[in-house]
Amino acid sequence: MCELLGMSANVPTDICFSFAGLMQRGGGTGPHRDGWGIAFYEGKGVCSFHDPEPSAQSRIAQMVREHPIKSHVVISHIRQANVGRISLENTHPFCRELWGQYWTFAHNGQLDQKLFQLPLGVYRPVGTTDSEYALCWLLGTLREAYPEPPATPELFRFIRQQCDQLRELGVFNMLLTDSQHLFAYCTSKLNWLTRRAPFGEASLKDDDVVVDFCQQTQPGDVVTVIATEPLTENEQWQQMRSGEMQLFVEGLAVTVD
Amino acid sequence: MCELLGMSANVPTDICFSFAGLMQRGGGTGPHRDGWGIAFYEGKGVCSFHDPEPSAQSRIAQMVREHPIKSHVVISHIRQANVGRISLENTHPFCRELWGQYWTFAHNGQLDQKLFQLPLGVYRPVGTTDSEYALCWLLGTLREAYPEPPATPELFRFIRQQCDQLRELGVFNMLLTDSQHLFAYCTSKLNWLTRRAPFGEASLKDDDVVVDFCQQTQPGDVVTVIATEPLTENEQWQQMRSGEMQLFVEGLAVTVD
Repeated sequence: MCELLGMSANVPTDICFSFAGLMQRGGGTGPHRDGWGIAFYEGKGVCSFHDPEPSAQSRIAQMVREHPIKSHVVISHIRQANVGRISLENTHPFCRELWGQYWTFAHNGQLDQKLFQLPLGVYRPVGTTDSEYALCWLLGTLREAYPEPPATPELFRFIRQQCDQLRELGVFNMLLTDSQHLFAYCTSKLNWLTRRAPFGEASLKDDDVVVDFCQQTQPGDVVTVIATEPLTENEQWQQMRSGEMQLFVEGLAVTVD
Repeated sequence: MCELLGMSANVPTDICFSFAGLMQRGGGTGPHRDGWGIAFYEGKGVCSFHDPEPSAQSRIAQMVREHPIKSHVVISHIRQANVGRISLENTHPFCRELWGQYWTFAHNGQLDQKLFQLPLGVYRPVGTTDSEYALCWLLGTLREAYPEPPATPELFRFIRQQCDQLRELGVFNMLLTDSQHLFAYCTSKLNWLTRRAPFGEASLKDDDVVVDFCQQTQPGDVVTVIATEPLTENEQWQQMRSGEMQLFVEGLAVTVD
């Protein structure tokens, strides 16, 4: 299993605190030694780092941890390889352009070989993971169904329906974003938490770090963090149900239907 | 004008020395203050860094400079903005997937507004630069002409023909790679140099650095560096002609036709 980390915020926010916890799980407190990656959005642009080295020892991870890149949407992943060898092209998150937007995706879980029989459209995988194949299939069907971007509720329903289909092939926890929308789909394990005023202190489970968000935030800030396992021990995380998809926009959980 | 830097090598090679020279031109010895980016290939995978900050002051650039990422193909760019505001989505190099390969592209020059009338196929720009539009058009026509990748000579001729068309719209110096092939097209300014045994010393024009490649290389290594302006002062650079396209594979200039 791999670990996912996502963030959605209404103001550019740095993810250093949550990232510090996640990175320890990559060969430190966890078994996820097979690479890691992170994508930060600034507007429609995305800046990403990928490293096939264990995150706990990675110099790039160290820099990301210490370098407060402010972003409104982040997706990160640390990998324990199952399908696909350890290499840069198999390192999440994966990205493709659709409708003039960069779509970034990370997956935790494992899908049946039958996945590779699903017909691909425009997008082809570069590496050999089930995850990248699933993204290529999903975006290919999305593009075929909608030559132009649909309204958010329709987009939500279409993506959920495709995720339901992937869930029949195994474990499919994922984070997907187009820079505006952040979709989180759960099969087995995904938790999220929204921080907003009044802000308090939070202490990381995996590392000896406490942050007082009160000192780092403005009263109007809203930030949601999504992670495979709760990253802090003194906050109330929402556990997602199997088959549930949740949309986040500008830091807030948005209900669609 | 922006500055381009490319590398093709037959063994994983670090580009720290050339990158050190280029980065000084980003707000140090040169006027290219409007962001920079670099893409490193390892096999079919690509790891890239993009920063809208001036490269001479960039902490990410500092890390890339000190962190010897070994790669067989590299494309880098520092920007002096003309078309498109300074932002992450307008920062080169740009990347799209075609035929299951990541295609990375950087451009120096400026193209006429007529460019934006060229019809796009599958790929759409995310930002507003002429450069990203040109890439989307070029790859769209390539995909339409060849649903599957053609042989290298045919690929070369098709890309050169499309570049010739872009050159009619203005200044179009570019570097383009699919991880195996590195294409360099010149309208006004592009220079290259192949280093192979016997290796000697090289000293950077822009920074007080001398490298003895003899101590860093094996006798069989072949490395080509391509840059807008020669980066070293004591080596013989080949100046490209206007309308010339040169292909590099595994460090060597390859003649096609």
